Amino acid sequence: MTTSREIRLRSRPQGLPAAANFELATVELAAPGPGEVQVRNTWMTVDPYMRGRMNDVKSYVPPFQLGRPLEGGAIGEVIASNDPSLKPGDLVQSNFGWREAFNAPASSVQKLNTHGLPTEAFLGVAGMPGLTAYAGLLRVAALKPGDVVFVSGAAGAVGSLVCQIAKLKGHKVIASAGGAEKARFLKDEIGVDAVIDYKATGDSAAALTAALAEAAPEGIDVYFDNVGGGHLEAALNAARPYARFAICGMISMYNAEAPVPGPANMALIIGKNLRLEGFIVSNHWDMMGDFLKELGAWHAKGQLKWRQTVREGIASAPDAFIGLFTGANMGKMLVKLA
Amino acid sequence: MTTSREIRLRSRPQGLPAAANFELATVELAAPGPGEVQVRNTWMTVDPYMRGRMNDVKSYVPPFQLGRPLEGGAIGEVIASNDPSLKPGDLVQSNFGWREAFNAPASSVQKLNTHGLPTEAFLGVAGMPGLTAYAGLLRVAALKPGDVVFVSGAAGAVGSLVCQIAKLKGHKVIASAGGAEKARFLKDEIGVDAVIDYKATGDSAAALTAALAEAAPEGIDVYFDNVGGGHLEAALNAARPYARFAICGMISMYNAEAPVPGPANMALIIGKNLRLEGFIVSNHWDMMGDFLKELGAWHAKGQLKWRQTVREGIASAPDAFIGLFTGANMGKMLVKLA
Repeated sequence: MTTSREIRLRSRPQGLPAAANFELATVELAAPGPGEVQVRNTWMTVDPYMRGRMNDVKSYVPPFQLGRPLEGGAIGEVIASNDPSLKPGDLVQSNFGWREAFNAPASSVQKLNTHGLPTEAFLGVAGMPGLTAYAGLLRVAALKPGDVVFVSGAAGAVGSLVCQIAKLKGHKVIASAGGAEKARFLKDEIGVDAVIDYKATGDSAAALTAALAEAAPEGIDVYFDNVGGGHLEAALNAARPYARFAICGMISMYNAEAPVPGPANMALIIGKNLRLEGFIVSNHWDMMGDFLKELGAWHAKGQLKWRQTVREGIASAPDAFIGLFTGANMGKMLVKLA
Repeated sequence: MTTSREIRLRSRPQGLPAAANFELATVELAAPGPGEVQVRNTWMTVDPYMRGRMNDVKSYVPPFQLGRPLEGGAIGEVIASNDPSLKPGDLVQSNFGWREAFNAPASSVQKLNTHGLPTEAFLGVAGMPGLTAYAGLLRVAALKPGDVVFVSGAAGAVGSLVCQIAKLKGHKVIASAGGAEKARFLKDEIGVDAVIDYKATGDSAAALTAALAEAAPEGIDVYFDNVGGGHLEAALNAARPYARFAICGMISMYNAEAPVPGPANMALIIGKNLRLEGFIVSNHWDMMGDFLKELGAWHAKGQLKWRQTVREGIASAPDAFIGLFTGANMGKMLVKLA
């Protein structure tokens, strides 16, 4: 028997999730059944989208169940196999995060070839957040030469890669993030053209509109939205005709306990011919090959900079998750499990 | 000398325009100069977009100037010509509306071939509003087989044609309009599948969401927005994955004296992969040929139904315009000048 600890959803959060919404439980795993593998996770990810699954609301993924372990991306090592396709020692990627170990059909995990990258990169820059940045910027926002790009949540896992891709492709980039350390990282390491530190300016639509007008007096052509709220309203004000908005996330809304009014300037989308398009990364897996090829080339030239914020041990996972909403992470937030 | 009366902008409206914002003035026109024609207008149009030009705000068209005649679509007859390209009796279309007669360079008016349609149709179903409906539905919203279509402002010049085109192309159509007479027209004459009379249901997002859920329990794939506000929020709630919103107008906002909060459910555009796209008809003139061809075919088969609301005389133009915002028109609102 293998002992594993896991995080279960004890109650549905109202507003900002709290430790009491989660519980740590211990389970004993039998040997894997026919066609199954047993995996010990080494890394798991926490991502803002998981907040939506904690509500009892139908969406593009079903809600998490109370009393059941949460789910999410993880990387682990096969420790026992009852299927010829995998053997002990193989590295695999799965959606069985939030637990130290698990049994699952071999077909439900993917063998991982790291191409020399650190394994945890596949939960971040080379994984789902990376592809989200790539597909959102290049396909959804249809980035084209000369575009001025505005990115909110710019120090996060997705946002920081959006900034880098846009810079590597020669664009002027304005990044919004909260706090001096994040601002410094974006300006000095990623090399964006201007940073709006919304913890300094305030995050009202008016404050952000003024900051954006100063950073990009010529206006913006692309807005990559991770935040919503005042950032979206400011971006509508700053948009040049035919600007495209890739709406990836609205983290400012996820913990709202009552409906938050949307931008008061939505009518601008008519006269400016704007396009706002929401997307989820799972519709863009077809770009993974192109993405990893470009990413590999940037990495080989030493052009890629990523940050991660690491918590240790399964018991820290709820806190890591909650930290996404309080700005505790620089780059990808991860939990190291073994 | 020819005497002409014209409507000038006396003051910029605050909120709903009032008669006092306009003034009727009389001018004397000399004979047309070299290369000019003199035109007596027979019809002029009033359109919701003109409200935006009454504010002192930069947009895709410059604001109207105080003390100067307003501008807008008109059809008239050449009464004197000093240019070989036009002769007295020719019908022309121009942007010199809001006046009984004018002198202008011959190159600034377009000779009109009516193809047997009533001349005023070229200010409505066969003109700018018609092309707006056609381009918005087919190109911007990218209508495709099986789409369920929701149209707000559905009894207006644009909306009523959107409903008809969608019905002629075999779609389920839900139309929203204000008042029993409009509802009856849409249901019985245009043949839409369901009508929401927002004057009966109320126009809050909650009321419209409930009405839309009843009319289209399966959800909507296309929303043609002429209204904004609660209609837009309800459409976001009703949207099926990958729905496309053609944002043509937000008449509910145009007279707002303070910013009106946007939809409280904007975050739905992420998980549902929605696309919201604003547009102005002037970017779609290239579709005019296709549009008139299809329109002509529908007209020849007797499939086209349009309504117009006609006011008489230049002095009635401000009232006709104001009536756009109080729902006074069924179909195109026009002013007959001669």
